[in-house]
Amino acid sequence: MNNTAILLIDCPDRKGLVATVSGLLYEHGANIIHADQHQDHEAGLFFMRVEWALEDFDVEAFRSRFTPIAANLQMDWRLELSSTVTRVAIFVSQYLHCYADLLYRYKAGELACEIPLIVSNHPGGLALAEFHGIPFHHVEIGPDGKTGAAGKAEAERRQTELLEEQRIDLIVLARYMQILSPEFVSRFPNRIINVHHSFLPAFVGAKPYHRAFERGVKLIGSTSHYVTEVLDDGPIIEQDVTRISHRDQLEDLIEKGRDLERVVLSRAVRWRLAHRILSYGSKTVVFD
Amino acid sequence: MNNTAILLIDCPDRKGLVATVSGLLYEHGANIIHADQHQDHEAGLFFMRVEWALEDFDVEAFRSRFTPIAANLQMDWRLELSSTVTRVAIFVSQYLHCYADLLYRYKAGELACEIPLIVSNHPGGLALAEFHGIPFHHVEIGPDGKTGAAGKAEAERRQTELLEEQRIDLIVLARYMQILSPEFVSRFPNRIINVHHSFLPAFVGAKPYHRAFERGVKLIGSTSHYVTEVLDDGPIIEQDVTRISHRDQLEDLIEKGRDLERVVLSRAVRWRLAHRILSYGSKTVVFD
Amino acid sequence: MNNTAILLIDCPDRKGLVATVSGLLYEHGANIIHADQHQDHEAGLFFMRVEWALEDFDVEAFRSRFTPIAANLQMDWRLELSSTVTRVAIFVSQYLHCYADLLYRYKAGELACEIPLIVSNHPGGLALAEFHGIPFHHVEIGPDGKTGAAGKAEAERRQTELLEEQRIDLIVLARYMQILSPEFVSRFPNRIINVHHSFLPAFVGAKPYHRAFERGVKLIGSTSHYVTEVLDDGPIIEQDVTRISHRDQLEDLIEKGRDLERVVLSRAVRWRLAHRILSYGSKTVVFD
Amino acid sequence: MNNTAILLIDCPDRKGLVATVSGLLYEHGANIIHADQHQDHEAGLFFMRVEWALEDFDVEAFRSRFTPIAANLQMDWRLELSSTVTRVAIFVSQYLHCYADLLYRYKAGELACEIPLIVSNHPGGLALAEFHGIPFHHVEIGPDGKTGAAGKAEAERRQTELLEEQRIDLIVLARYMQILSPEFVSRFPNRIINVHHSFLPAFVGAKPYHRAFERGVKLIGSTSHYVTEVLDDGPIIEQDVTRISHRDQLEDLIEKGRDLERVVLSRAVRWRLAHRILSYGSKTVVFD
Repeated sequence: MNNTAILLIDCPDRKGLVATVSGLLYEHGANIIHADQHQDHEAGLFFMRVEWALEDFDVEAFRSRFTPIAANLQMDWRLELSSTVTRVAIFVSQYLHCYADLLYRYKAGELACEIPLIVSNHPGGLALAEFHGIPFHHVEIGPDGKTGAAGKAEAERRQTELLEEQRIDLIVLARYMQILSPEFVSRFPNRIINVHHSFLPAFVGAKPYHRAFERGVKLIGSTSHYVTEVLDDGPIIEQDVTRISHRDQLEDLIEKGRDLERVVLSRAVRWRLAHRILSYGSKTVVFD
Repeated sequence: MNNTAILLIDCPDRKGLVATVSGLLYEHGANIIHADQHQDHEAGLFFMRVEWALEDFDVEAFRSRFTPIAANLQMDWRLELSSTVTRVAIFVSQYLHCYADLLYRYKAGELACEIPLIVSNHPGGLALAEFHGIPFHHVEIGPDGKTGAAGKAEAERRQTELLEEQRIDLIVLARYMQILSPEFVSRFPNRIINVHHSFLPAFVGAKPYHRAFERGVKLIGSTSHYVTEVLDDGPIIEQDVTRISHRDQLEDLIEKGRDLERVVLSRAVRWRLAHRILSYGSKTVVFD
Repeated sequence: MNNTAILLIDCPDRKGLVATVSGLLYEHGANIIHADQHQDHEAGLFFMRVEWALEDFDVEAFRSRFTPIAANLQMDWRLELSSTVTRVAIFVSQYLHCYADLLYRYKAGELACEIPLIVSNHPGGLALAEFHGIPFHHVEIGPDGKTGAAGKAEAERRQTELLEEQRIDLIVLARYMQILSPEFVSRFPNRIINVHHSFLPAFVGAKPYHRAFERGVKLIGSTSHYVTEVLDDGPIIEQDVTRISHRDQLEDLIEKGRDLERVVLSRAVRWRLAHRILSYGSKTVVFD
Repeated sequence: MNNTAILLIDCPDRKGLVATVSGLLYEHGANIIHADQHQDHEAGLFFMRVEWALEDFDVEAFRSRFTPIAANLQMDWRLELSSTVTRVAIFVSQYLHCYADLLYRYKAGELACEIPLIVSNHPGGLALAEFHGIPFHHVEIGPDGKTGAAGKAEAERRQTELLEEQRIDLIVLARYMQILSPEFVSRFPNRIINVHHSFLPAFVGAKPYHRAFERGVKLIGSTSHYVTEVLDDGPIIEQDVTRISHRDQLEDLIEKGRDLERVVLSRAVRWRLAHRILSYGSKTVVFD
């Protein structure tokens, strides 16, 4: 990977936005590698992602020139440097397929991040964490967990502590089977990615494969999305489906679904790490 | 196509079913062309489809031998002859893409049926019907149609008359935009096929593309299903999806969806005409 | 559709291209609706497509400012106006599914073009042409056609005459079963779109479904591409596949393939009409 | 998993085959769990797979009754017991994604086999083998390997020794980058599964992603197949594709391809372990 800067912009649409941004970058000598923009005509919004090489480019000079211009144009913006590595925590429970997949990709160099923290409410993932040399924290959630009482609150307090200690930027729920409290979620806006094992909005909530099987669908799906305070309702990042038939029993759905979940979650994580996702309302723009 | 017989069976599962059916067919000299069976282990059900050539085969002799045996094994069964052509009515409204597609396939010989009747609550499909030489009946539905009162009742009375006159076996709703009354539906069990423009059970009801667009999904779908008294809840025959992105506006969803709808509906019709679908509960077995 | 202008650019990559183009458009008051660019880093090439509304925009003033700048930057460029309707000829033979599909889409308003000419070496497509009110020319190709001798030369002379009379911009080969001579092809660079019934480069040449069936593939495909002088070797515009199994006989491949061909060809035509395709070497950039 | 028997049959088609087999099984009290058959009408061949529970079933009595009947009907057949676990060797080189995927699935219980042997011409896979507790043999291939001389012959001698010591039933080439000699291949008919990183027959041979990138295809694929003496020409078991665009550079093809390869290879292995594949000529029947 080269050393690059990425500018992400989200603002009201108006004439001249591309000219302004690209002109300013040109003045500062930027060698643009990728540029993409999108307009949501209905919402009147403009989105842009530009990536450029940092050779002979003074980031701070650009930043100070750009800041007042962006303010003037009511831009929400972030300037990311590829040299600043995102710090990721993985949350997992007893199903390890997404977790094992992410760890393999991480080790193979597919995920441009650090993973200094794994949190689980089950001990099953420990061996893999040790193999990859990543600290694994077994944070148990008491029997009151499901009812939202002290067990979960205490667990989330401990989780938050760990996340802060490790200065985590992004939480990936790799089939983590606990519902996070609204308080917890609100602390990490657009910073928690979950995988749900259905093509949302079908089969929101528990046991989607069981319900897909009962309904007799001919496709099963998987969805990765940002977590918001409403269950399975956050902005969708990626979805995919696979064909099933009457020959597939419930266990076949679960098995075929696992392959979907791994791919759909890992794509979302990879895109997030490349700063390719902008979310607004219940939607995402995923720049390719 | 050859002259064949097709036996469709649905019964409680037990040992010896395949042996019994295939033994009996062998005794009668059947030359089996296709045979397929399926067991739903959870429901304890057995499904079978056998197709054989009718050369040197005495259908009536077989039928009289088979009838008491089938009764004994609690079989629901049908014996279909490829020489008995299914009579199909198409119902359509203002969107003509599925309708035009079905008529083209019919003319090109892809659909092994007769289409002696087209019913529409709009006049738009008339020219195509005339081009293909098929009687087109414009059955208007009054302004009270939506509220379930006299307008629709009168229209359905007229539709039923037409269906009976033409001895229709199968009704295909090619984006027919009226909800059929439970009374009408109950008269044609497993004999009405609809296409819904979403991957059910997501976006049941009206304006699924609008809702898909608002939700920000990354796939749109289409579903063909048997119509039951509960809206968009009948046994699913076929589903397919296509990928969309943030670049797709509502009109792009509608345009991409049309291609899905055509394919998903025509597959269902083709399979039905080949007597390849068995439905039970909310599910279908589609033999390939 | 709105009244828009579309600028397509293809040039050596260098700093400041986006800034130059977008700056110039801004100066002229363009309200940009879509903008997209692409860099082929390996080939050192830059591609851009910008579309803007023509209200209060002086196209000719822009054109005269832009021309010398583009020359300076070694740009290949075209400025297309949505008000200038592309004139399309369809070439067809005995298989009518793509042809019927294109005519239906044309009539339904999906294809932003005029179709003033149909050319066929078979009479089968006449009825549909008449139904849609489009002149149909049956240009027979003699028995020497296959060997490249006088029959084809004479036919191509007649075809060229018809194309010139009708000032055709784009030729769509809708399963036209004759190989065009290199002379004919060279007269219409990037202006002939063909559909080949395989996922190229597999099964170049004749009878791809037969060969796919013999090879025992598990997917069949379809490819739309620009025609060049080398058979089935032009820049690919779109491809798609569908799954088959051992149960599918040759006729099933042909039937399933028809649905692919229709979709893959019509997408290519639609994108071409929207000026979304740039081709270079054996590749295309298809802006979405 | 239950304790079951699986009968696989391949023979000339004739009347009464299903009746004969199912009748015999019924006489012996078999409780059939799955049964499937297929006829290749063109080749005049019949294929069958039946699976039944072994409770109260005398396998040897059935085998001795069935053997002469099968001989009489010119059947090729195998009777497999789910209790006899297939012994698998994995061959791998420097690319570890398929290898890691298979080992994960093995550990997670998705693959009903034993893996007592890993062979590699690179040392890179050692750590994963140790983590999973599987003997890893680094069999180097000398610089003459590519030219087919002594280095490869010696390596294959050593590999054969290891395969025999471990009584291996199935060899899985998980991106093993050496071409096996015809002598080696002929020793393991239908017992070597390879994954090729293209949708065969496109891009046979080396560097398929490079060639796909140069050709400008819009889909990339992956194929799992039995290895025969002709390179990349064996019976195809499974294929899948994924969409790419002009935005995807060569490294993106390689990255997207990895996910395809893993899924396509693991499906083939799973089906083989379930005795669901019959191969004939260049084709496979894969019973689902």
